[in-house]
Amino acid sequence: MFSPQTYQHRRDTLQMKVGSGLILLLGNTENPINFEHNTYPFRQDSTFLYYFGIKAANIAAVIDIDNQRTIIFGDELNMDQIVWMGRQETLKEKCDQSGVQTSMPFSALQPFLHSASKAGQQIHYLPPYQSFNKIVISDLLGIAIKNINPSPSLIKAVVSQRSIKEQQELEEIEAALKVSVDMHLLAMKFTKPGMMERDIANAIQHHAANHGSPLAYPPIVTVHGEILHNSYKLNILKQGDMLLNDSGAETALGYAADLTRTFPVGANFTTQQRELYDVVLHSFYAARELLSPEITFKEVHLSACERLVEGLIALGLMKGDPKEAVRQHAHTLFFQCGLGHMMGLDVHDMEDLGEQYVGYTEEEPKDTRTFGLKSLRLGKKLAPGFVLTVEPGIYIIPELIDRWQAENKLSDFINYDKLRTYRNFGGIRIEDNFVITESGYRQLGPELIKTAHEIENFRKDYVS
Amino acid sequence: MFSPQTYQHRRDTLQMKVGSGLILLLGNTENPINFEHNTYPFRQDSTFLYYFGIKAANIAAVIDIDNQRTIIFGDELNMDQIVWMGRQETLKEKCDQSGVQTSMPFSALQPFLHSASKAGQQIHYLPPYQSFNKIVISDLLGIAIKNINPSPSLIKAVVSQRSIKEQQELEEIEAALKVSVDMHLLAMKFTKPGMMERDIANAIQHHAANHGSPLAYPPIVTVHGEILHNSYKLNILKQGDMLLNDSGAETALGYAADLTRTFPVGANFTTQQRELYDVVLHSFYAARELLSPEITFKEVHLSACERLVEGLIALGLMKGDPKEAVRQHAHTLFFQCGLGHMMGLDVHDMEDLGEQYVGYTEEEPKDTRTFGLKSLRLGKKLAPGFVLTVEPGIYIIPELIDRWQAENKLSDFINYDKLRTYRNFGGIRIEDNFVITESGYRQLGPELIKTAHEIENFRKDYVS
Repeated sequence: MFSPQTYQHRRDTLQMKVGSGLILLLGNTENPINFEHNTYPFRQDSTFLYYFGIKAANIAAVIDIDNQRTIIFGDELNMDQIVWMGRQETLKEKCDQSGVQTSMPFSALQPFLHSASKAGQQIHYLPPYQSFNKIVISDLLGIAIKNINPSPSLIKAVVSQRSIKEQQELEEIEAALKVSVDMHLLAMKFTKPGMMERDIANAIQHHAANHGSPLAYPPIVTVHGEILHNSYKLNILKQGDMLLNDSGAETALGYAADLTRTFPVGANFTTQQRELYDVVLHSFYAARELLSPEITFKEVHLSACERLVEGLIALGLMKGDPKEAVRQHAHTLFFQCGLGHMMGLDVHDMEDLGEQYVGYTEEEPKDTRTFGLKSLRLGKKLAPGFVLTVEPGIYIIPELIDRWQAENKLSDFINYDKLRTYRNFGGIRIEDNFVITESGYRQLGPELIKTAHEIENFRKDYVS
Repeated sequence: MFSPQTYQHRRDTLQMKVGSGLILLLGNTENPINFEHNTYPFRQDSTFLYYFGIKAANIAAVIDIDNQRTIIFGDELNMDQIVWMGRQETLKEKCDQSGVQTSMPFSALQPFLHSASKAGQQIHYLPPYQSFNKIVISDLLGIAIKNINPSPSLIKAVVSQRSIKEQQELEEIEAALKVSVDMHLLAMKFTKPGMMERDIANAIQHHAANHGSPLAYPPIVTVHGEILHNSYKLNILKQGDMLLNDSGAETALGYAADLTRTFPVGANFTTQQRELYDVVLHSFYAARELLSPEITFKEVHLSACERLVEGLIALGLMKGDPKEAVRQHAHTLFFQCGLGHMMGLDVHDMEDLGEQYVGYTEEEPKDTRTFGLKSLRLGKKLAPGFVLTVEPGIYIIPELIDRWQAENKLSDFINYDKLRTYRNFGGIRIEDNFVITESGYRQLGPELIKTAHEIENFRKDYVS
């Protein structure tokens, strides 16, 4: 945990931003796998971690702005539970570490909120994403689940705080990146033709676990890099394949890393692979250099797209004017998703609070209709302290090509004939994590080899 | 998956047992970790697996007994989802493998149930354990969550079927045991003083994952074996400690194994450790020999307790008449829990359906008040085809001893003075899995070394 003062200070700021009423923050519960007492590893809610740092399940907190008091609601272990689960840190001790003076049994929360509500206090709460907490809110406030109505002013206040990372948060993210870089190097050492995708996924998970880190998200480890959300891991790696490894660790305090590398299953990229790899890499470099508080991430995204198109034109896969191609979204046949997203206590930071608040503004809302832009999670102006990913890619998706070609879509920009020879190409993504500074950006974590040459040079000692 | 005929046959039997009305079975959903789209590994509901074998999320099934039709409700991927997630087996293909002819969109389920209800059909459903499915049932049936009212006749029918394992189910459990035995041997090879508990837990998890098996439950790997439900794994192993490893794998079809071994962190047990180890082992052997369709598991449990007491008397930790000691529950200072439980698609098989149905009968209900017996999950008469664990143990719990001693509780049976020298002893458990046969029992899976001699002999090659 950070110091009690850290949490106290964050809560003070939150109170000031919200102004009045009462803030209800729910911790997470244990999630059953196949029956109530067989549960997944517990993960505390990120906003709860941010303001309290307490990792116990089934606790909630009230920050009563009007009456200047903060209370944790939760239950101490009884003697039977101590016999079964061992003596553990008490809730009282946890509250002390969080700088909270008052705790009450969880059962006191409903009457507490009832009184506050009768006294005319507004109860602010965040959108629940776990079904359990939807039921909890419904029960606590006596409203139907469909009438749950999170507080925009609370959401905005939380987003404004969590978006700007403190120095100690950056250190956490860099600690997550240190483990993650080693995971990626391990994958590059370990991968050989004949293995299954899951062998590599398991090895990196094992490495992270041995460093006390869960993975921040289910890793994507696949020879089908063109499948953007791929959980299948039973393909056998073959000479000539590329392996895309998108994986990152999480620190004990909950901070994420999110890295992607794509490398040959054999010792070397094929010429075709290396050519497209360099297109993605140049797009990555170009996007990285634009990072600064002077620009919106949408501009960075579109600029990266233009660099991809230029490279694809040079290889004969696209044609025409790059700017006009991007304006007409022709690049989305190759790059269907967004260039990156905020990162912090969540790998897609604060995704539970809503993209319209985290990645966009009321003045410049998200384009939710255009293929490509509708998958861009972050579009707004960057600010010092933002932590984000940059992750351009090229994805050759046969189903999408077939659909476009059947409509002869944007054929002024796409060389469908040439594309035929790339049909089984797969996908490439390169991803690092950055913090925006006053003057530009700083890459977070240790440098992880990235050029085709560096990767081939590293791989040659491990695979023939 | 098993054959379509297997699932069809199981459903036919279920229909016959329930008799009339309509059976609604819900599959599980993806569970969010820290935001909606960052999810834990998906695990299908076990009863859904039993009757359909389909592993997709967000599907439900209706077995309409009155109208002799079975329908799967769920949604095929749309083109956008195929672009994002790759082409996958369709719901239609999954239904074919399950022997189900009809599928409908999930949105058709609510009106379907509404019509059935209006037509006077009784809708049978099971108790939901995932909060998501509590909300689903509430929405589907238009009832408050607190009014969810599972069908006892459906529960009893499912329990009666799932309790008696088919040959192909036994083979699955034995496959889970094969991986699990190797996990335990790996732990016994790998463990050395200076390691952290989690190093061993991670190694066995990695082994299981490389065999395509998730763990059937969060493993207990601890030098504090006396803490029955222990998830803390940061203790450093020291020469002189024992490590208790309670872990088992799950097959791709969902069948569990559940094994426990306790072994010295160094090469050898201490004399004190070995003496108590042998007490537990003799109790284990005695219990095992009683397994048959002629006996209740409660009798086996109490008999195992008596053997523990006899051993503890021989060592001077208890005194008096063993039978009387057990009658007065004096053994529960050392063995606070139950001797075992049913096992199958769940490690605590069908725990979601209710212990009163799975482990007991209306005629002989569970003793829910007596310390010890209230933790015995299985008490009823055994029957051929039951699969269960036998897992006696001795747990020296300082907090419990202090409480008893303060009350001078059962001091006719407990030598509190002698016990003082065991205060930091820890805990020992030995656990294997069995199927009840017509004539007695058969141990499932490969034999895993169990005697102190076997364990020390095995360990000597790996640790000095």
